[in-house]
Amino acid sequence: MLIVMKPRCTPDEVEQVTERVRSLGLTPHPIPGAQRVAIGITGNKGPLEPELFTTLPGVADALRVSQPFKLVSREVKEEDTVIDVGGVKVGGDHVVVMAGPCSVESREQILEAAHAVRAAGATLLRGGAYKPRTSPYEFQGLREEGLKLLALAREQTGLKVVTEVKDTETLPLVAEYADVLQVGARNMQNFSLLEKLGRTDKPVLLKRGLSATLKELLMAAEYIVASGNHRVMLCERGIRTFETMTRNTVDINAVPVLKTLSHLPVVLDPSHGVGIRKHVPAIARAGVAAGADALVIEVHPCPEKALSDGQQSLTCGEFEGLMRQVEQIARAVGKPLSTLAGTARPQAKRR
Amino acid sequence: MLIVMKPRCTPDEVEQVTERVRSLGLTPHPIPGAQRVAIGITGNKGPLEPELFTTLPGVADALRVSQPFKLVSREVKEEDTVIDVGGVKVGGDHVVVMAGPCSVESREQILEAAHAVRAAGATLLRGGAYKPRTSPYEFQGLREEGLKLLALAREQTGLKVVTEVKDTETLPLVAEYADVLQVGARNMQNFSLLEKLGRTDKPVLLKRGLSATLKELLMAAEYIVASGNHRVMLCERGIRTFETMTRNTVDINAVPVLKTLSHLPVVLDPSHGVGIRKHVPAIARAGVAAGADALVIEVHPCPEKALSDGQQSLTCGEFEGLMRQVEQIARAVGKPLSTLAGTARPQAKRR
Amino acid sequence: MLIVMKPRCTPDEVEQVTERVRSLGLTPHPIPGAQRVAIGITGNKGPLEPELFTTLPGVADALRVSQPFKLVSREVKEEDTVIDVGGVKVGGDHVVVMAGPCSVESREQILEAAHAVRAAGATLLRGGAYKPRTSPYEFQGLREEGLKLLALAREQTGLKVVTEVKDTETLPLVAEYADVLQVGARNMQNFSLLEKLGRTDKPVLLKRGLSATLKELLMAAEYIVASGNHRVMLCERGIRTFETMTRNTVDINAVPVLKTLSHLPVVLDPSHGVGIRKHVPAIARAGVAAGADALVIEVHPCPEKALSDGQQSLTCGEFEGLMRQVEQIARAVGKPLSTLAGTARPQAKRR
Amino acid sequence: MLIVMKPRCTPDEVEQVTERVRSLGLTPHPIPGAQRVAIGITGNKGPLEPELFTTLPGVADALRVSQPFKLVSREVKEEDTVIDVGGVKVGGDHVVVMAGPCSVESREQILEAAHAVRAAGATLLRGGAYKPRTSPYEFQGLREEGLKLLALAREQTGLKVVTEVKDTETLPLVAEYADVLQVGARNMQNFSLLEKLGRTDKPVLLKRGLSATLKELLMAAEYIVASGNHRVMLCERGIRTFETMTRNTVDINAVPVLKTLSHLPVVLDPSHGVGIRKHVPAIARAGVAAGADALVIEVHPCPEKALSDGQQSLTCGEFEGLMRQVEQIARAVGKPLSTLAGTARPQAKRR
Repeated sequence: MLIVMKPRCTPDEVEQVTERVRSLGLTPHPIPGAQRVAIGITGNKGPLEPELFTTLPGVADALRVSQPFKLVSREVKEEDTVIDVGGVKVGGDHVVVMAGPCSVESREQILEAAHAVRAAGATLLRGGAYKPRTSPYEFQGLREEGLKLLALAREQTGLKVVTEVKDTETLPLVAEYADVLQVGARNMQNFSLLEKLGRTDKPVLLKRGLSATLKELLMAAEYIVASGNHRVMLCERGIRTFETMTRNTVDINAVPVLKTLSHLPVVLDPSHGVGIRKHVPAIARAGVAAGADALVIEVHPCPEKALSDGQQSLTCGEFEGLMRQVEQIARAVGKPLSTLAGTARPQAKRR
Repeated sequence: MLIVMKPRCTPDEVEQVTERVRSLGLTPHPIPGAQRVAIGITGNKGPLEPELFTTLPGVADALRVSQPFKLVSREVKEEDTVIDVGGVKVGGDHVVVMAGPCSVESREQILEAAHAVRAAGATLLRGGAYKPRTSPYEFQGLREEGLKLLALAREQTGLKVVTEVKDTETLPLVAEYADVLQVGARNMQNFSLLEKLGRTDKPVLLKRGLSATLKELLMAAEYIVASGNHRVMLCERGIRTFETMTRNTVDINAVPVLKTLSHLPVVLDPSHGVGIRKHVPAIARAGVAAGADALVIEVHPCPEKALSDGQQSLTCGEFEGLMRQVEQIARAVGKPLSTLAGTARPQAKRR
Repeated sequence: MLIVMKPRCTPDEVEQVTERVRSLGLTPHPIPGAQRVAIGITGNKGPLEPELFTTLPGVADALRVSQPFKLVSREVKEEDTVIDVGGVKVGGDHVVVMAGPCSVESREQILEAAHAVRAAGATLLRGGAYKPRTSPYEFQGLREEGLKLLALAREQTGLKVVTEVKDTETLPLVAEYADVLQVGARNMQNFSLLEKLGRTDKPVLLKRGLSATLKELLMAAEYIVASGNHRVMLCERGIRTFETMTRNTVDINAVPVLKTLSHLPVVLDPSHGVGIRKHVPAIARAGVAAGADALVIEVHPCPEKALSDGQQSLTCGEFEGLMRQVEQIARAVGKPLSTLAGTARPQAKRR
Repeated sequence: MLIVMKPRCTPDEVEQVTERVRSLGLTPHPIPGAQRVAIGITGNKGPLEPELFTTLPGVADALRVSQPFKLVSREVKEEDTVIDVGGVKVGGDHVVVMAGPCSVESREQILEAAHAVRAAGATLLRGGAYKPRTSPYEFQGLREEGLKLLALAREQTGLKVVTEVKDTETLPLVAEYADVLQVGARNMQNFSLLEKLGRTDKPVLLKRGLSATLKELLMAAEYIVASGNHRVMLCERGIRTFETMTRNTVDINAVPVLKTLSHLPVVLDPSHGVGIRKHVPAIARAGVAAGADALVIEVHPCPEKALSDGQQSLTCGEFEGLMRQVEQIARAVGKPLSTLAGTARPQAKRR
């Protein structure tokens, strides 16, 4: 069971609840550091009566939850969570496309990419300024300089910015610039980072770890939500399997399974998922057909010169082609592409 | 390099080719037991001149092939292979849906299923008569009785029949009844069975093994083709990974990768792929969006009573709903659903 | 529950038991084709009283079994199964080493290998005459000629012969020559082959499939035992994972887990397990330390010229070194190396 | 190639080297934040002459390295790295056993565990004060209180302390108390943490990620070493595979492969690796037989009451039994158990 406290409950009220829990021979689990306090209960053999708790002062609700993930579960909240990113709604009745280069590399590169993906119909710009890399000898990103260039691209194009936050140290700086904070696959269970993200007011794009189960992904999201930030997007980006012909294996099952278990928006990253440029459009189409709320696509003005992930980045022209295909699928599933207010619709552009 | 001999070449002509290969210090690999003899060559450092061989008597062609799979490769044959199953074309410009129960269980069950999937727009009937089961204590299929019931269903509905062949012993009997011979995932590398299938004149639906790489799937197909049967469909049915929330993990990447590497048709089995009834339609849509040529779907008049795979079988009504969704996607990718000649089109039915 | 019938029970007696099962509203599962008839029961909610069945004529025993694998389970038989291969006991208080080349390639090669492994202390000779290969263009074994050479090597050295059986067609021929019939990893769930092996009187070395769970391995063994052959050895030979630096990943956990769940002997194949010559001794030592009853090691007089698996085959000299190391470990775990009667002990040889 | 600068080289000297690299049309990769500066070079087609760089001021060495991991590679340093932890030498000619509870839970618990493992022959004490947990609702450790209890246990027993560091925020505090800093599997690619660990003077026990390749583990170690801390132990603790009967799959191959590729000590954690109490001794034996330099074993005075990992923790009595078995194996491989100066040797105790 999960006891949800009212927003401005007092420490005394929380203490009363935990006392009540203990008096029943059960264990209370106050959610550490959350702005909205909740208290999980374990140790009960059968179901508990909500009235045991809802009658106490400061208690907003008492919920029976069968899954280990609670606040992110559809059991707790039936309707879809829609996350508003400067007017772009992720998780609603439109498919959102986020696009841009793996890394911000230069003023020219990011501006050219931003204008191109904007023109092709993307509504959010992605680009990495801090890059966690397998090798200490690889390009680690332009860091603050990259953040500034992203802000410039936002100014010029109106596209809101998704960028990765690599650690708690740089979180405040990245949060100053970003509209959406991305957590990379290797950080999915960096619980200290998740807790800190739970205390920001920025939406979070949480990527599934390379070998994380769906349950673990939901538990990672639970960390963020339990710490007070309810705006989390779940991102399938391919898992690690025995197959070596592709970079990762897109677990397309994840899309309908996550949509069923959780109210949070589900994003697919076909670029990392398959890792081979020519196959990205097919996987993007599949993701939308399976019910994804958004796509995140790597686009680079000149992929062969990219400092990271060139082999999976589309050219601007290829991205335009992908958008036309995705639009067909999006309409076929009754969830058309999101467009920026005041933008020519992509199909207009094609005439 | 691959030397392809003419259909009725003589042993002497083959010997002359292998002699030539050896005289160059290379190793000839005659394809064992094939009706159409081919000779692979290994040991060469760089490319060989085709004229070294095409000038010999009995030689049809000499092909440079960089992949270990040769006859199934797009390098050897650029255009798509279209397999005609009694008028239903798999691999062409329409999406084919095969549907029916996991196992044939009774006259009533298979006939009800056959009529229902026919009415909803399927063009091939699937159903197992010989069932390889993990446990020796589980239902092993109705065997020949099941084959006869499939033939009856074909007679009544006009649907051609796809059924599994479990071993070389029962192959002749199954081949008498089946229109398409299915090889199960656990038999994908049963090479003796593959070779025998290469000597039949029936199309083969070859399922990917649970942990087979795409290269191994293509090599398994190569066994069949090298033995003389060029009508092979490649079927992605989910692979085994660490994820336990779904029965298998659909490797959706397999669809565009196989279509690129091979000229053979690609089939997706969302029923085994996700293994949970309510998620089958989403994965079916994803498969068609990714470019699959066909789907194979488990449908049972009464899934909760099914002797096998009930939890992943759709009811007849759910299947009709799936067909409507798949049709939208099929049209969106420009490859509409295949229909049986003389059938009301599925959309007509829905009015 | 499992009802075990007496050896020469009549069809009427079996029918009486299945009637009794049905009359209780449960489902009987007669084991198909077994010489020793057993009847599994499913459908019961709680435990059944054995007396319901043991009082019927022809019934030998009625066993409560919680696992899906029954006859191979320690629940059914507590003491270790010891398999006698011409005097060499696998599964008892000594560690057995089987060694020899991957494939039999020539008279000289197999005789040299056999004498060398005999001298170094191996007590069984391995060698493949029928080779299932991923590619149809690779060396497929010397077939019957290979079997004859193995027989010759047995005659000269006294070593009993372990060789692979690839399919049901060649099983009778292979069984004529072999002392132990090996089932390859790709055939672990070739149920028709398993059933036929259950009707031979030769011990079976059953290799775990590349992505088979331990439960599936035990179910495969159950097929053989349920068909009448109780002499099955379970062989861990590495599973398929994401790691690419080694050929497979040895699941060393399998050794103690299988020993606990089953009474059958457990064999480790470090050669396939790691796939890199220089690491084979370390894995062989680990296997014996973990409690394996036997090892199977690839040894080739000249690995760099081997037609298959050369990179993982030890030279005869390296094998001698491995034996010395394994002997130390075998003694440390209180299960010394098995030796052939009349053989100089390996340590004697080292003087 | 890797250019290693002298300890107190100047920025100018580094600049001169990078200039030289650029002038050759290649890319220099200064190692960010390292105390000992090194410069990796990429972009070269063939090998470079070391003299191009060793003649420049401030350059200590110029090494040809074929692997992406450089400083941790045997190519760069042939002899084993031996890490001295308060007199206990890890990586040398003795096997070290680290033991203790998963989490520090109370004064009584940690002291009882510490005395027991000390008496049984362990030479380092493990215990978690900061616990990264999959769920935000699970016990997260006693934090600083736990560190203090570990220090008390060290004082009483003389055992040096291994404890996990969860994030960069708590690193300074943990480093004050710990003798060895453990990085958990989920943090293996927390690159910011790795870099900070590279700037401490404490040895690091780096656990392999659940789906990290051996190459990635070595690259993670490279981050630490490249940042200035050469005292890293590599720990295999089981990987994630499809097998569900055990908690993880111990990749025993990792032991000899890591020992060959790297000069760093290799540690095996059988407790997490198999995750089932009764199988821990078999896996511990296997690890030592395969060549591990150390074991880390979970021991709890009362496993059934443990707040974490109780099902895989040994009782103190079971641990004593394990030590006796491991000692036999350690002697068989010529690398006896390490003992604390002034301690009765474990075998003495058994009399």
